[in-house]
Parts: sequence; C-alpha cells; structure tokens
Amino acid sequence: MQPPWRQPSRRFQPVDLVPEEQIEAIHETSLRILSEIGIDFLHPEARRLLAEAGATVDPDSNRVRFEPGLVEERISTAPSEFTIHARNPERNLHMGGDSVAFTAVASPPNVSDEISGRRTGNQKDFRNLVRLGQTLNTVHLWGGYPVEPTDLHPSIRHLEALFDLLTLSDRVIHAYSLGAQRNIDAVEMIKIARQIDDSRLLEEPSLISVVNASSPLRYDTPMLEGIMEFSSRNQVIVITPFTLAGAMAPVTVAGAVAQHNAEALAGIAFTQVVNPGAPVIYGGFTSNVDMQSGAPAFGTPEFMQTAMITGQLTRRYGVPYRSSGVNAANALDAQAAYESVFSLWGAIMGGAHVVLHAAGWMEGGLRASFEKMILDADLLGMVQRFLEPIDFSEGGLAYEAVKDVGPGGHFFGTPHTLDRFRDAFYAPLISDWRNFESWEESGRPEAKEKMVELVKMFLDSYEEPPMDPSVRAQLEEFKDRRIAEGGVETDY
Amino acid sequence: MQPPWRQPSRRFQPVDLVPEEQIEAIHETSLRILSEIGIDFLHPEARRLLAEAGATVDPDSNRVRFEPGLVEERISTAPSEFTIHARNPERNLHMGGDSVAFTAVASPPNVSDEISGRRTGNQKDFRNLVRLGQTLNTVHLWGGYPVEPTDLHPSIRHLEALFDLLTLSDRVIHAYSLGAQRNIDAVEMIKIARQIDDSRLLEEPSLISVVNASSPLRYDTPMLEGIMEFSSRNQVIVITPFTLAGAMAPVTVAGAVAQHNAEALAGIAFTQVVNPGAPVIYGGFTSNVDMQSGAPAFGTPEFMQTAMITGQLTRRYGVPYRSSGVNAANALDAQAAYESVFSLWGAIMGGAHVVLHAAGWMEGGLRASFEKMILDADLLGMVQRFLEPIDFSEGGLAYEAVKDVGPGGHFFGTPHTLDRFRDAFYAPLISDWRNFESWEESGRPEAKEKMVELVKMFLDSYEEPPMDPSVRAQLEEFKDRRIAEGGVETDY
Repeated sequence: MQPPWRQPSRRFQPVDLVPEEQIEAIHETSLRILSEIGIDFLHPEARRLLAEAGATVDPDSNRVRFEPGLVEERISTAPSEFTIHARNPERNLHMGGDSVAFTAVASPPNVSDEISGRRTGNQKDFRNLVRLGQTLNTVHLWGGYPVEPTDLHPSIRHLEALFDLLTLSDRVIHAYSLGAQRNIDAVEMIKIARQIDDSRLLEEPSLISVVNASSPLRYDTPMLEGIMEFSSRNQVIVITPFTLAGAMAPVTVAGAVAQHNAEALAGIAFTQVVNPGAPVIYGGFTSNVDMQSGAPAFGTPEFMQTAMITGQLTRRYGVPYRSSGVNAANALDAQAAYESVFSLWGAIMGGAHVVLHAAGWMEGGLRASFEKMILDADLLGMVQRFLEPIDFSEGGLAYEAVKDVGPGGHFFGTPHTLDRFRDAFYAPLISDWRNFESWEESGRPEAKEKMVELVKMFLDSYEEPPMDPSVRAQLEEFKDRRIAEGGVETDY
Repeated sequence: MQPPWRQPSRRFQPVDLVPEEQIEAIHETSLRILSEIGIDFLHPEARRLLAEAGATVDPDSNRVRFEPGLVEERISTAPSEFTIHARNPERNLHMGGDSVAFTAVASPPNVSDEISGRRTGNQKDFRNLVRLGQTLNTVHLWGGYPVEPTDLHPSIRHLEALFDLLTLSDRVIHAYSLGAQRNIDAVEMIKIARQIDDSRLLEEPSLISVVNASSPLRYDTPMLEGIMEFSSRNQVIVITPFTLAGAMAPVTVAGAVAQHNAEALAGIAFTQVVNPGAPVIYGGFTSNVDMQSGAPAFGTPEFMQTAMITGQLTRRYGVPYRSSGVNAANALDAQAAYESVFSLWGAIMGGAHVVLHAAGWMEGGLRASFEKMILDADLLGMVQRFLEPIDFSEGGLAYEAVKDVGPGGHFFGTPHTLDRFRDAFYAPLISDWRNFESWEESGRPEAKEKMVELVKMFLDSYEEPPMDPSVRAQLEEFKDRRIAEGGVETDY
C-alpha cells in the first residue's frame, strides 16, 4: 500500500525567496545583535568555554558577546553533511546535501484519537504512536517523544521512553537535553542498542537532540548541558530558537528572522567551541502569533516566508537545515490540511534537510493525533513522490506510444500503459477520487473517516522490528538498573 | 477583512524542477511528434492557413505536420507580456513577467452549497457565484462561467452570461470558443462595456478564451474558430491541452508533458499564423488518472511535477503560463484542502502567471461550490500574502526593537509592535487559532461551518459595481436584440 522505505532527495535548487543583499542584511543584523546586545548563556561552564574561545563574557551577568569575526570563524567548522546512524543500519540517514527526512510530531502534552477523544499523554499512547510511526515509511526518524508519557515520573521517563523507541522502532532516535545525565543515559543506551563502544560512537553520530533557545536571546542551563554532552561526543545537536514574531521576536518577518538567526548562530558557534566539527543542524522555527489574541499560528504565509529565508541563511552558512510540518488546527478539517501543506511547501522549497513534527502534530504542538499522523503520512508520501526522479528514458518520453495511439485515440490498455500503470502514480492513502454518485451511495464519507480506518489498519499491521534477544536483555538491564537507582534527580 | 484588491507579483525565480537537458528532451520529443506524427486540425480554413504558412497538410485527412524550424519560428512572435483590459480599468491585469492572477472555477455543470445541496447549474446560481467572486479580492478575473447556467438554452446562454459577467462584476472576462458567432458576440459586448471601437480593441486585449486541444493530437472546429476570431482581433487565447496521463496521454510524466507540449506548440503556432504577435498564453493542464478506476485526479504529486516542468517549457518559449488550482474532492474536507494547496504549490513555484479554476472548483471540475470558493479565496489570500514583498528597512530588520526588549523579554505592547501589529500578518478568513478549551466551549466548529457563515457574509456585502446607465442600456439592448434574433443557431 505504501511505497518502500527510503530517504528522499531534492534534485532541484531550493528557492531563493529574497535577493542575496537582503540575506546579508539579516546576517549583518544578527552579527550586530551578537556583538552589541549579546546573548545570555545561563551555564557557568558554557560561559567559561566561550570566554576561552574569545567571546566577551560579562563578569557580572550571564551575558556573552561575540565579535562578528569570531562567529563566522567558529561556525565555519560545522560540517555541511553527515550521516546519523540508526540501530538498524538500513535506517541510517544522510543529513545535508540533497537529502530530506521527516520526523513524527514531538513533545505534545496531549494526545487524541477520534474514537476515545483527547487526553493527557501517557505511556500507552506513547507506545502506540511509536508503533504507528514505525509502520509509516514516510516517518524517517524520531524528533522526540510523539507524545509526553506524563504518567511516567520525569526522573525515569527518559529511560522508559528511550527503551521503547529503541525496541518498538528501528529508526534514528532523539534524546532530550533536559540535564546532562539524561543525555548520558541516552548515550549508554544507543551504545548498547548498536553494540558499539565510545570510540565508534564518536565516529558515528547516532543520537539527535533539539536544543531550543529561550527567545529572546537566552540559552538555559539544561540545553547548554545537552550541547556539552552531545557535541563533545560528536552527536547531533539541532539548534532551534523558537521565535513567534510579535511575541518573543519582533513583529516583522525580517526582524524575527534576524533575531532567530543571531540565536542560532550563537548556539551553533557554541557546539563548535565544545568540539570543532561536531555535527549540528540549523533549526528554523519562526512563525507568528494572531495579533488579536496572541495565539500562536503555524503554516501561515509568514511561516512560509521565514522557512524559505532561513533556508537561504543555512545555505550561506553551509549547515544542514531543519524546518517543521505544523498547524494550529483543533479538528481534522480543511484547516489542519492546508496549514500542514503550506508549512511543507515552505520547508521543502526552502531547502530543509529534516522536517520535524511532520506527522501527527495538531493544536500548535499541544496535541498528537493518531489520525493526523496518518493524514500527514499521506501528505509526506505525496511530497516524497514529488521529489522522486522522473523517467526521461525513451520509454518515459513515450514517443512511440504517442505514435501508436495517434490523434483521437486513448492510452488505456496500450502496452506502454500496461507495462507501467502499477507504479506510474502515487496511490494516496486517503484521497477519495470516486465520482459523486458512487461517493454518495457509499454514504458520503469524508477524509476523517478514512483516517480512522487507516489508524486501525496500520496499528494492526505493526510488527516489532527484530532485535537480538541478548541486546534487548542488556538494554532492559540498563534501563531497570537506572530506574532502580532512581533515574535522574528531580526536585518534584 | 480582506486585503485590498491588487495583482500579486512573484519576486523570486520559479523552480527549475528538472535540468535543462531534460527540458530539451521534452522539447525535441514534441517537435518530433509534430513533424512525424502530426496533429489533426478539423477546420478546413485552419488547414489552409497552416499550409500557407509552410506546414505540411495531408490532402486526404485533417493531419497537419510541422517541420521543427517552422514551429520555433512561428512561436517566436508570441509576446512574453501584455495587459488584459477590464471594463473597470482598475481591474486591468498584466500577464507574464513577474505577475500572477487567479480566476474562479470555470465551466462545471453542477453547483452546490452546504445548505441546499448539489444541483445542476442554473442562472440563479451562476449569478450568485459571479456576485460572490466579485466580492473576493483574490479573484482577479473570470476564466469562464463559474457554473454552467444550463437552464439557459445554448443558443442564447452566452449572451445572458456575458451580460451578467459584465454588469455584476467589473473584472476581466472570458468568452468561450464554441463557434465563431459566440466569439463575435463577446467582441461586440466588450466593445460596448468598455465603450471602445475595433481599432482600440485591437490595441487593447480585453477578452480571454481558453482553447482546449482534444487530446491526443486534435483541435476541433469550434476551438479553431475561436483562435481565428480572437487572435485576428488581438484578443487573448489560452492554448490548453487537457491531458490526463494514462488516459489521453502516455502514463509517464515526461511522455504526457511531451505530448501536451506538442499540442500546445501547435496551437500557439496557429495563433501566430493567424496574427503574428497576437497575445497567447500557454496553458498547462497535465494531471493523471487513478489507474485502478480511470478516475481523474488533481493536486497529485504528478500534477505538481507537470506544473513545474511545463513552467520551465513556457520560460524556454517566452510565453505567459497558465496553470490551475484543482482537486478531485467530493467534500469540503482535508482532501479538498490538501489537493488544492498542492496544485497551488505546483502552479506558483512553477511560475504560472494565471491560475485558472483557483476558487470554487470541486469533483475534478464537475461541481462549483459556494463554500469552496470561500475556502479557496482564503488559500489564495495566503499565497498572495506569501508573494508580498518583505520589509527589509531598518524598522523591518528591527535591531533597535531587539535591543530594547533584550534577553528574556517579550515584544507584546512594545512601540515597534504597536506601530505594526494591525497589518503585520495575514488575517485568515477561516483558520480557527483558539486553544482547545475555547474551541470546545464554542461547540467544536470545523472549518466548513466558517465557510458557510462567510458565504452568507460575503454575498450580503455584495454591491453591484457601478456602470454608466447608458452603457448598461446599450449592453442590454444588444443582448436583447441578439436573443430576439435567436442567438446562435444550434441543432437542438
């Protein structure tokens, strides 16, 4: 029913939405923000490392200022392409260049399905979303927990969740930067799952972690610990300021991107201060708020503009680019679809190499939806098909077929058609192309009904990906031991 | 509520989906189709003109063959840009270059609204759709009748419909090429509406007519009459082969486009044979069928591919490009939205100058929907906003605003925000950005409910655009006289 799993490539140049001089104007504004205003780094060790690297650290505050030359020099060591390794090597992914990858929704506190409704995230739904994502060939990696399993205490949640991600799925996994020990636990678990040692892990990035700036202009302690733990071990950091124009960034598109870019450059520079050459991805996430209510908005025209401009900036810096597949819809209606496709339009034409949240996100990230994951998998399938190469062979150009049919004929049933019709076109999961009469006879089903059916069908088709029982036992032993130790200290 | 009426511009380079050598491969295949297979032109006068121009006309059939050099020479006189005049000069449109324009749905036999359901097209609904389109600032011109008023006899339908389009709306109008006399009546009516004479009409294209090839490889008599009547008078012809890959064109994307391109080149060449320099638009309309059922499909990945490749071809030929905003949905659901946005993605990034059917089309063109027209107007509003220039002034780049707010602050209520928030972002018609709790309290409205409300609101806001009473009287007199004469002879 689905095309086979493979990582898509973009074979065309991404769009340069604005001229180069406007990209330079943003770049210069960002450098000025970094040199004159500066950014707060809340971790003393981060400030010490940055001072050592030549940044100006205010001794009386958390403020760090970067001379323009320092920023440009530091980011220059970030690699433009690299591979991330999955526990199943067939699921390794290339980041950068022409490659594209999609992740499922990450981190929503709530979850829903159309049968049981909306509820707080829990381990059962977390596991089922992981299972559903694992069945979908357009979910190439995990960008976080598809829903927060809030019934697990934060001290041990990461141990249970990483164990589930590593056993229920075979894709590249994400680990949250919520304090050094959580990153370190993830490192131990991926080493077991991949049966590799520290030196091999250093050569083969196998974990990805999103690090958000606290916009405007601040990096918090746990996020900085994540960079220090992961960049030093050559694991992948996705530096993603989350700036909503009009709220935590200026109300103008250019201003919001300039601030976002300053934050991103500071974060990327810090990864390279920690470990020159460490793999890092530039995360774009500038959207806008509804100026009447302050509500966040996604998949807007402004989101598309910032997604494409940010892509231009990342190409200037030679760093892989992360964007997002997002929407603010409450229902599985037209809005959910058009905001999602507009955000994909921005991401894909903007040159994103990895699109986070691309399957299952609703309500501006506050809810994961099983049915939305299916809808999005179909949208991503269409995008992936759009990215596939087109057959320009003699048979593809089809001169002989046109000649054989001639004026006034038709191509149904011709040998040229019969040889190719099975895979000629993308077969959608959801679209109902029946004529009105047939559609009406079958009870006028809307797209949502198909999504509900497909959730069940895909979950029923789920098979746990094979794992050597001894590896699984080691992983379980590690998880159980760390849980018995109390996991990570929390103050609640 | 809507941004003011204006024609959008695309300020970035459209996407080159495939490399130049693949565009050349299509071009060469098309020329080979035209020289070796040929195209049937069913009108003797057309064949005579083509023979005179150097084409090889088979004396025993309708077949016309074109040497490659002849095609290239003939199409070279087609202008790359021109203006189309509306009866209200503020609604004149530029075609080609960076300009973009959107039309409402054209020619469906059925119509629906969510209150009264689906029915056969009639004059009342036709008029209301014209009124609704007139209220929407993203409907820049008419691409045909927004629904067929089938309760009007075909002999006089064009007279009634053109009168309504010219009086209920002030936009550029389309006239069907369904036999010479209908084109001639349209010429007389636009001359009255614009109060211009033949020589001024010759200077100022004021009518647009879509001419479809009967794919594969055939031009029918009424369509050829349309070209002869309109191109000779310097009115705009949109040459649009309608090729569904797998049905009336090869099942391969490259083959379908090659055949489509051959048909388009032949049609464009014929407009230039009739009148070198006559304004002509290259209409792309290659989609695919569902290979299981044969049902036409729109807004598919293959549609996006053909839309972008066709755009590359039109840039090679230097002719303005028409694409379409389309879908095959039966309901106003997620499918209707995602197929529509995917088709807009293909059209806009492919470099289309005019997007037909962009507001109100459903069921693959078999139905116009009042609510879909509103949904699409919102989608087009988002696309138009995306195309708007971005403020890169000092205020736009917002360095001072970032400095004033500083790390950890927020931009709500700052002077920079207060000065700009009213127009900072596109205000959607339909999107509901409330949080889940507010949305639930208000009864969980889905997007369709908002569309229903908005149809009423926009129709209530309709005002007939002013027209000099004496002009209106002349127009009415012409229409009534031609109806009294029996209109155009039909055999039914």
